[in-house]
Amino acid sequence: MIIVMKSGASRADIDRVCGKVEARGLKTHLSEGEDRTVIGVIGHDPFSVKDAFTHDPSVEEVVRITSADTVVRLGNGLTIGGDEVVLMAGPCSVEGGEMLLETARAVRDGGGHILRGGAFKPRTSPYAFQGLGREGLRHLAEARRQTGLPVITEVMTPSEVETVAEVADIVQIGARNMQNFDLLREVGRHPRPVMLKRGLSNTIEEWLLSAEYVLSQGNYNVILCERGIRTFETMTRNTLDIACVPLLEELSHLPVIIDPSHGTGRWSLVGACARAAIAAGADGVMIEVHPRPDEALSDGPQSLTPQNFAALVPQLRRVAAAVGKRLADPVRADTADAAVAG
Amino acid sequence: MIIVMKSGASRADIDRVCGKVEARGLKTHLSEGEDRTVIGVIGHDPFSVKDAFTHDPSVEEVVRITSADTVVRLGNGLTIGGDEVVLMAGPCSVEGGEMLLETARAVRDGGGHILRGGAFKPRTSPYAFQGLGREGLRHLAEARRQTGLPVITEVMTPSEVETVAEVADIVQIGARNMQNFDLLREVGRHPRPVMLKRGLSNTIEEWLLSAEYVLSQGNYNVILCERGIRTFETMTRNTLDIACVPLLEELSHLPVIIDPSHGTGRWSLVGACARAAIAAGADGVMIEVHPRPDEALSDGPQSLTPQNFAALVPQLRRVAAAVGKRLADPVRADTADAAVAG
Amino acid sequence: MIIVMKSGASRADIDRVCGKVEARGLKTHLSEGEDRTVIGVIGHDPFSVKDAFTHDPSVEEVVRITSADTVVRLGNGLTIGGDEVVLMAGPCSVEGGEMLLETARAVRDGGGHILRGGAFKPRTSPYAFQGLGREGLRHLAEARRQTGLPVITEVMTPSEVETVAEVADIVQIGARNMQNFDLLREVGRHPRPVMLKRGLSNTIEEWLLSAEYVLSQGNYNVILCERGIRTFETMTRNTLDIACVPLLEELSHLPVIIDPSHGTGRWSLVGACARAAIAAGADGVMIEVHPRPDEALSDGPQSLTPQNFAALVPQLRRVAAAVGKRLADPVRADTADAAVAG
Amino acid sequence: MIIVMKSGASRADIDRVCGKVEARGLKTHLSEGEDRTVIGVIGHDPFSVKDAFTHDPSVEEVVRITSADTVVRLGNGLTIGGDEVVLMAGPCSVEGGEMLLETARAVRDGGGHILRGGAFKPRTSPYAFQGLGREGLRHLAEARRQTGLPVITEVMTPSEVETVAEVADIVQIGARNMQNFDLLREVGRHPRPVMLKRGLSNTIEEWLLSAEYVLSQGNYNVILCERGIRTFETMTRNTLDIACVPLLEELSHLPVIIDPSHGTGRWSLVGACARAAIAAGADGVMIEVHPRPDEALSDGPQSLTPQNFAALVPQLRRVAAAVGKRLADPVRADTADAAVAG
Repeated sequence: MIIVMKSGASRADIDRVCGKVEARGLKTHLSEGEDRTVIGVIGHDPFSVKDAFTHDPSVEEVVRITSADTVVRLGNGLTIGGDEVVLMAGPCSVEGGEMLLETARAVRDGGGHILRGGAFKPRTSPYAFQGLGREGLRHLAEARRQTGLPVITEVMTPSEVETVAEVADIVQIGARNMQNFDLLREVGRHPRPVMLKRGLSNTIEEWLLSAEYVLSQGNYNVILCERGIRTFETMTRNTLDIACVPLLEELSHLPVIIDPSHGTGRWSLVGACARAAIAAGADGVMIEVHPRPDEALSDGPQSLTPQNFAALVPQLRRVAAAVGKRLADPVRADTADAAVAG
Repeated sequence: MIIVMKSGASRADIDRVCGKVEARGLKTHLSEGEDRTVIGVIGHDPFSVKDAFTHDPSVEEVVRITSADTVVRLGNGLTIGGDEVVLMAGPCSVEGGEMLLETARAVRDGGGHILRGGAFKPRTSPYAFQGLGREGLRHLAEARRQTGLPVITEVMTPSEVETVAEVADIVQIGARNMQNFDLLREVGRHPRPVMLKRGLSNTIEEWLLSAEYVLSQGNYNVILCERGIRTFETMTRNTLDIACVPLLEELSHLPVIIDPSHGTGRWSLVGACARAAIAAGADGVMIEVHPRPDEALSDGPQSLTPQNFAALVPQLRRVAAAVGKRLADPVRADTADAAVAG
Repeated sequence: MIIVMKSGASRADIDRVCGKVEARGLKTHLSEGEDRTVIGVIGHDPFSVKDAFTHDPSVEEVVRITSADTVVRLGNGLTIGGDEVVLMAGPCSVEGGEMLLETARAVRDGGGHILRGGAFKPRTSPYAFQGLGREGLRHLAEARRQTGLPVITEVMTPSEVETVAEVADIVQIGARNMQNFDLLREVGRHPRPVMLKRGLSNTIEEWLLSAEYVLSQGNYNVILCERGIRTFETMTRNTLDIACVPLLEELSHLPVIIDPSHGTGRWSLVGACARAAIAAGADGVMIEVHPRPDEALSDGPQSLTPQNFAALVPQLRRVAAAVGKRLADPVRADTADAAVAG
Repeated sequence: MIIVMKSGASRADIDRVCGKVEARGLKTHLSEGEDRTVIGVIGHDPFSVKDAFTHDPSVEEVVRITSADTVVRLGNGLTIGGDEVVLMAGPCSVEGGEMLLETARAVRDGGGHILRGGAFKPRTSPYAFQGLGREGLRHLAEARRQTGLPVITEVMTPSEVETVAEVADIVQIGARNMQNFDLLREVGRHPRPVMLKRGLSNTIEEWLLSAEYVLSQGNYNVILCERGIRTFETMTRNTLDIACVPLLEELSHLPVIIDPSHGTGRWSLVGACARAAIAAGADGVMIEVHPRPDEALSDGPQSLTPQNFAALVPQLRRVAAAVGKRLADPVRADTADAAVAG
C-alpha cells in the first residue's frame, strides 16, 4: 500500500499520517518527490489502512503497492493476470503415461491452456495412492512435448523443489502446505512461477502473508488459487469463497485462479462455479478432467469428462466477453519446447 | 423426488425399490400408470436417493418432484423463477417516508424490479434501531403506489403475518428465523409469496426442510435466498456460498435469489458477486441501495449508492445474456395498484 | 461493566475516560460518590473496555456490573448460580405419561435436581415427531407433583409463553430461537426464570445481547446454557465450547449450565464432558436420560440410561468438591407443590 | 480395530463379517486361533465399524487394536499415557538463554514435568520473529542440563529432524504441519517420541490418519495434542474441543495432551480449561509460562506468569485425584543427563 500525500501537505501532516500508520503496527517508508511525498506502508492488513486514510484531508489517494498488476508470463508466451482468462485442466493425479496423454490432448482440443496433474500427491491417509512421484513428472514432460501445453504440478517438500521445477512451468503449493514456511521460502528462491493454493481454513490475510514468504525471497511470479474453504456445509466438499476474487483485486496485485473442482467436490456444480468465477473477475480457472472419472484413483466425483469440459469452454468464453475479457488463444503445438523456459 | 420405473418393471422390482427407499427413512407413494409406475419419494435428503437409484437396473430415471420449475408470479405480472432475472433493491431499513421514496425512484430508474426495505428489523442488540414497524409498512405501501414497484419486507413473528402481508408482495423470512417453525407454518397458511433466507449456519438440507414447513401448509410460492454463511473468515461479513445455486437447481424446483450485500458486507464486492450469481444461474439478486450509505441506520457499509446500482445493472444484463437469460422488463408505474393483488 | 475511578481522579480524568468509552460506541452513566466516581458502561463488548482501561493511571478497577452473581432461586428453594452445582436431567421429548414418570423417578433417585423434557419440539423436518404439545405439559406437571422435581421445558413462540410458564419452573429458549427477538421480549415480560440456550453458530457476544433482550424487559432470572456450536468436525454432533464457562464468568453475572448431550451427540462422551464442565466452573449440567435410548423418538444416541446417569453423579460430586463446590442437596418429594411458585 | 468372533462362529459367518468390513473400503486380516477367529480391520474410520458390528449375532466384541494403551516413556523415567498426569510448561518461544533458564526453574519449582519452548517458530508473517533456531536448541539443552526437565520443541522441516531430535526428548509437530506428510514420515523414521498437534481445522479422523503416517514408519511413540480448532467465535483465539479427549480414548490407544493456552488465547481462561482437560481424562496439559508476558516476543496474552502457574498446579492435583489419577512425581535434577536418552 502506498499513501500519496496531497501536493501541499506539510511536514506536520506527513508526520501525523505516518504516526497513524505506525500506531497500527505497520512500518512506513518515505519517498519525498519534488511535488509530493509518498508513504510506503509495510506490513499486512492493508484494508484497515485504506479505510482509515481515504478521507484524511491531506491524503490524495491510497493505492496498491504496484502501479500495475502482476502478469505472470510463461515460456510459450501465455500470460496470467492480464486481460486474458486461462483455463488449467487435467487429472487430479497422473495415473500413467497413456491416460495423461489422452487427457492432455482432450484438454488442448477442448480449449484448455495449461495441463494440471499431480505427480506427488498429499493424501490424508498413508494407505491411499500417493502419486507416481518422479515417474509422474516424466509423464508430464512427455505430455507437454507432445501437446505444447505448459504444465502445473505440485511440490510437497523443500528437497524436491529443484526436481519439480525442472519439469513444471508453474510449481503448485497445495492447500495443506500453505503454511509450510520452509517450503514457501524454498520456492521463493527459485525463479519458476508459483501457484499458491489457499489453505482449507486459512483467512485471506494469512494467505497473503504466505505469498509474502515467497515474494520476500525474490520470486515475484506468484499466482493465488482459491479452492474452497472448510465450513459446516457437507453437501459440497468445500465452500467456494467467490467474494475473494474482488477482495483480492483490492488488496493485492497478484493474479487469482479459481478451482471449482475442489471448491465443490461435485462435477455437476463445476460449470456454474467456473462461470461465476470468470464473471467475478478471476484470471482463470483450474478444472479437473479425467477420461473416465469412475475409474479415477483420486477425486473422480469432481472430475469432468473431456466432453463436458469441451462443452463448458464456449460458455466461459461468452461470460468472459460479458465482463470485458477474453479467453487466451489456443495453444500451438510448436511452442512445446519453449514452455518451461520461462 | 420421483423414481420413474422402467416400463417392464415387475411388481417385485417395484416392491424392492420401495423397500430400499423406506429403509432410508423416507416414505413412498405409488402412481401406477398404464405404461409404467412412478414412485413418489416423500421426505428429505433427495441426493442420497438419487445416488442410490440412478444405476438400479429397473429404474428408468430419478427426477425432481415437479416436472416444471416453480415460477412465482406477482400481481403486476413479474415472474421469479423463469427465464427472467429479477433485481430486488432498496435500503436495509425503512428510515422514513422521504428517504424510501427517493430510493425507490432511484431503484426503478436504475433498472430494479422489486423494492426491498425492512420495517420490522431483527437486531442483535436490543439497544440498536429496531425499525419503524407499522409506520414503515405504510411508507412501503406509499412507495409502491408512487413507483409501481412490488415490495418485499420481513415478518418476524406469527402475529404480524397478516399485517405484513397486507402490504408486501413478497413476505421475507430472515436468516435468524429460518428455523422459527411456528412462523414458517403461519406464512405457509397465507397465500402471499414467501422468500426464505438461509440461516447463518444452516445447511442446505436444513434450509430445504424449512421450505417444506411452508409448502406443507399449502403455500407453494416459496423463493430461496442465499445471503452468505458464517465461517472463520473475517474480512467479509459472511461467506457467499455461490455453489448453492447449481446445487439447489438439482435438488429443488424453487427459485433462488442471491443477496451479495449481506453475503459480503462490503459494497465494493457487491457488483462482482452479483455478476457471479447470475453467471451461476440465479433467478435474481437482492442488493442494498441507500442514497447516503454513510448515514444509514443499518448496514451502510454494504449499501450501494443509487449511482453505483445504476452502473451495475447493464453489467448484469450482459452476464444474463451470456448464460441465456435476460433481465426482466422495467416496471411500469401504472401497474402499482396491481402489485399486491397476487 | 463499571469503571471505578481512583479517589483522587479529577474532573478532567473522568471526562477523558468517559470520552474513551464513548469513542467505542458505548454509553456512560456517572455515579459520583463522596469519595470516588463510578462510571457505568452501557452497551456490549465489555472485554474491549476491560482491556482498554485496566492500565489507565486514574482508573482503580474495572468490574462487572453487579457486585454479586445472579442466583436464580426456584420455588422449592433450589438455587442456580451460587456455590451449588445442579443437575438437570430427563428425556429429550416427553413421549408419554408413563415413560416420563419412570424417567423422573430415576432422575431423582439417581441424584438429579431438575426434570427436563420437551413438550413443544423444534424439529428440522416438518415430518418428524413434533412433541406432544399441551398434553406433554400436563405430563410434566404430573411428574413434578409425584417426584417433587422442578421442571424445565421449552417454549417456541410468543403466544405459548403464558401456557408453558404455568407448568415450567424454568422456561427454556432453544438454540434455534436464540435470536427470535419477539419471543425473547415475551419471556422477558414474564416473571418465570428463563434458560437461554446458545444458538448453533452464535458468538458469545450475540448470546449475551440476546440475554439483554430478556433482561431489558425486567426479567433478571436468566440462565445461560452452552450446548455445543457448529463446526467442521463431524464425529461429534456439535463442538462443546468449554472455554465459555470461565469467559462468561468474566463477562457476565449470569449462571452457566453446560449441556454435554447436545454438545457431543454421543452418550459415551457425556460423562467426561460433564466432569469437564464442572471442573471448569459451570453452575450445573443438563443431561438427557431415557429409560430405553434405542426406542427414543428423538436424540436416543445421546441419551444416558438411568443406570449410567446414576453412576455418573458420584463422579460429578467428586469433581465439584475438587474445585470447591458441592452438588445441591437431593430433592424432597414434599416440596412438589412449592416448585413452580418461584 | 479388531473384531473378535464368537467361539462358535462358522466359516460363513466369518466370510460374511469380512465382506461387510471390506464393503466399507477397509481391509481385513484373519487370525484364526484354536477357539475363535479374530479379524483385524485395517484402515480408518473405526467408529463406523464399531457401530456396524457391535450387534452382529456372531460377533463377540469389537476392540481397539492394542490391548493396552500406548505409554510413552522418556529417558528420565517419566511416562505419558498411563495413570499419571504430566504438565508441560514453558515459553512460546525461546527468546534467550537467561529467560529460558529463569522460566525452566520456575516451571520445575512450580510442579511442571517437561519444558516446552520453540526454537524454530512457524509464524504467519515472514516479518515476525522467527525463533532463534539452532541457538535456541542450545539454550534448551542447557536448561535441561541445569534443571533435569525433559524438553519438547518443534521441528518444521524434514532436513532439521535429526538436529532437533538430538536435543528434544519429544519432537513436536505443530498444527500447521499436521498434514506435512514428508515431515511426518521423517519423524516416523526416527526413534524419538513425537507429539502431533491437531491442525487448526482438521477433523479427528484426519488427525488420526496423520498419526498413522508416523506409526507406519515404525515410530510408535506418538502423543496427540489438541490445541483448539478454528471456528466462527472470535472472543477466544480458538475453540478448545474438549470432547476429543473421551472420543480419542475410544478410537485410539495414543496419549492425549490438551493445550489450553493456544486453545483459548487468553491467560485468564487457561486454568479453568486445564482443570476441565484433566477432569475429562487427558494425560496431561501443555501450558505457556513466561516470566514477563507483557514483553513476550510471541503469545504473551495467553501466557501464565510463574506465580499463576504455581498456583494452578495444586488445583490440577485435586482434579486429577477426583478422577482417579495423580500428577506425575516432581522431576529430580540429577536425572538431567538421562533425559534425552529415551
